[in-house]
Amino acid sequence: MKYSKLFGKTLRQPPKDATTVNHRLLTQAGYVEQLMAGVYTYLPLGLRVLTNIARVVREEMNLIDAQEILMPTLHPKANWEITKGWSNIDVLFKLKSRTDKEYALGQSEEEVVTPLVKGRISTYKDLPLCLYQIHWKYRDELRAKSGILRGREFFMKDLYSFHDTQEDFQRFYEIAKKTYLKIFKRLGLTAKVTEASGGGFSEKISYEFIVLTDAGEDTILYCDSCDFCVNVDIAKLKLGDLCASCKKSKLKQAKGSEVGNVFDLGQKYCKDFDITITGRDGEKIHPIMGCYGIGISRIMGVIVEKYNDKNGILWPKEATPYQMHLVGIGLDNKDILSKTHETYRKLQNKNVEILYDDRVDVSPGEKFADADLIGIPVRLVVSKKTGDKIEYKERDKEKTEMLSLEEVVKKVHV
Amino acid sequence: MKYSKLFGKTLRQPPKDATTVNHRLLTQAGYVEQLMAGVYTYLPLGLRVLTNIARVVREEMNLIDAQEILMPTLHPKANWEITKGWSNIDVLFKLKSRTDKEYALGQSEEEVVTPLVKGRISTYKDLPLCLYQIHWKYRDELRAKSGILRGREFFMKDLYSFHDTQEDFQRFYEIAKKTYLKIFKRLGLTAKVTEASGGGFSEKISYEFIVLTDAGEDTILYCDSCDFCVNVDIAKLKLGDLCASCKKSKLKQAKGSEVGNVFDLGQKYCKDFDITITGRDGEKIHPIMGCYGIGISRIMGVIVEKYNDKNGILWPKEATPYQMHLVGIGLDNKDILSKTHETYRKLQNKNVEILYDDRVDVSPGEKFADADLIGIPVRLVVSKKTGDKIEYKERDKEKTEMLSLEEVVKKVHV
Repeated sequence: MKYSKLFGKTLRQPPKDATTVNHRLLTQAGYVEQLMAGVYTYLPLGLRVLTNIARVVREEMNLIDAQEILMPTLHPKANWEITKGWSNIDVLFKLKSRTDKEYALGQSEEEVVTPLVKGRISTYKDLPLCLYQIHWKYRDELRAKSGILRGREFFMKDLYSFHDTQEDFQRFYEIAKKTYLKIFKRLGLTAKVTEASGGGFSEKISYEFIVLTDAGEDTILYCDSCDFCVNVDIAKLKLGDLCASCKKSKLKQAKGSEVGNVFDLGQKYCKDFDITITGRDGEKIHPIMGCYGIGISRIMGVIVEKYNDKNGILWPKEATPYQMHLVGIGLDNKDILSKTHETYRKLQNKNVEILYDDRVDVSPGEKFADADLIGIPVRLVVSKKTGDKIEYKERDKEKTEMLSLEEVVKKVHV
Repeated sequence: MKYSKLFGKTLRQPPKDATTVNHRLLTQAGYVEQLMAGVYTYLPLGLRVLTNIARVVREEMNLIDAQEILMPTLHPKANWEITKGWSNIDVLFKLKSRTDKEYALGQSEEEVVTPLVKGRISTYKDLPLCLYQIHWKYRDELRAKSGILRGREFFMKDLYSFHDTQEDFQRFYEIAKKTYLKIFKRLGLTAKVTEASGGGFSEKISYEFIVLTDAGEDTILYCDSCDFCVNVDIAKLKLGDLCASCKKSKLKQAKGSEVGNVFDLGQKYCKDFDITITGRDGEKIHPIMGCYGIGISRIMGVIVEKYNDKNGILWPKEATPYQMHLVGIGLDNKDILSKTHETYRKLQNKNVEILYDDRVDVSPGEKFADADLIGIPVRLVVSKKTGDKIEYKERDKEKTEMLSLEEVVKKVHV
């Protein structure tokens, strides 16, 4: 992509209403634009990042034999009355058609996926069944001031699993947990797993996957010596108490952002929608359900909160909108112009995804500042000085190297 | 994908409430499930088709240098008041937050894309600018009874172009028209281009891309001797009149379904949102806008309306959920089972997308009927009879051939 043509260039000034790092940097670097609080347009660079994160999630979901479907956003009121969500869930957006039909906007999809499964499973042999979707969700948040960390509309992966026994749910939970941690790791994030209350969903325990960041809305207590971690909302412990699990260290407290969660839904929804199947001993049972979320747009925000410096963003490789950022210096000189164009073309032919700053009337300093702000992991420079080589620099390092085109291509797949 | 594991198997009976071929076949074959009138869940097979159609559209949009973005579904009331759409557009879904903020659900995005562009273009040199998105749209339809042809929520590509002159809009319209016809052709559809009224959008003329099908909601007059085609809604002609263009043939009448449209929006939205740029002669001008839609979920429905027989669907190659449908016959025999599994594995390793009917307890007749109903273009059979070959049959032909695995793989890319 030629930067001169790119829609959504960097802005000279950060947005005035930005109170969080992700809102400020993503807006200034040309990734998103806020339409109103909690509602954002994704510009070309931003959509590429969002799509990359979704791709990582999708790849890992498919590896655990979850099947992708796509459920509607408009839900009939009747389904939400059956589960009592219509009156109990305060963040549920509701609307009426002109013929006074009432709908909810999807904020979670138990009310759709459970009746969908009804009639399509009849015995324990049909289970476990894991269905997921990657779709937009809508929540009537009272406050939506954390950039894309907490949106009134947000992009999410939600998976629903159906099991004949609690043991099978627990078995699958362990698989999902591993997969979640792998997903976050691929995206440069280390998540702590807490036990928390089930919110409106369930009386049962739920699990939260929290990435430590000062912009987070959750507060957790955690132990440095073991995996123990708990949300302060439900903790019977406090900062400085001895770890309840390993008893080796004193608990620390930190802010974090929830990037994923798992709810043990028990039989609630299968009872609500009257789903029975034949169990292993021939008896009629209600299946047990689990719900597993990953906030995709939120992860994009959390990455920015974690990976930034005074100059801009530093994208992890799997999330970056382009693999390399090629900067041409001195493009008013015909020879350098054609050499830089040629480098761009050759790298494209090698399937390297390149953002190419081809602007003629912009100073080197401004181009380098834009490259740092945008945050692609590798910056390449072609100029009078670089001869038949290319200057190669990683976003998080000071050091530059002079490499041949072939050497640059090899670096992509390191 | 192993059919035994697939969520969304074929149904023995068509749905009772289906009045259109696409609703009936897509439901019975396991592609979609209606949640309520005009609102559908896409099951794994259906989502693959929808994704394929979107991929074709995206590829062609990128070729004409349109840039993909993603705009929100929740729109602030203020934007729709500026354009008068809030009170004038009867299909606009409206909702309120619990703090009485009012929103519209996106049914078209001029109200978002125009202010988005403001401040990011300042001179004619920044134009033409073409932005598109592929996203769900919401329309409060009074009647939504045509399966996925007319949904209350539907998947759509919408592109917006900005120009400094009417001539440049016209130049780009011709490019877009060619691209649209190419997209439809890749998806097995031949569209006629009509001129029609601009609906609520514009006083200006608009263009509709209509595929002839009895399930369509539009009626058009067309000429067999030339490209002349007009929607009866605005035609001053009638069935049997001499073609107004070539004067060679009498006009025919047919039903059709609109799969795409183009609106010449003129300066309306740029005036509404007060966008001025510097024109070629240094004067201040309002840019001219065009809007270009393609109904992706609708195309999926139209394909089914066009390509079906008494046994089921016949997918075009670019839309089909899988490239080949492998049927194992006699899988209770260990040798045949392992030979069929081996064939499946080898074809997968050759990157052939395969739906593999691995069911043991189902008769050959039922498997063949399911394959015809699902409508993948190629059916492969491995059985006792096929020896070290594979029986190859195309969905729209009676003839079967015995091919080696290598020969089967070669057929994929014909």
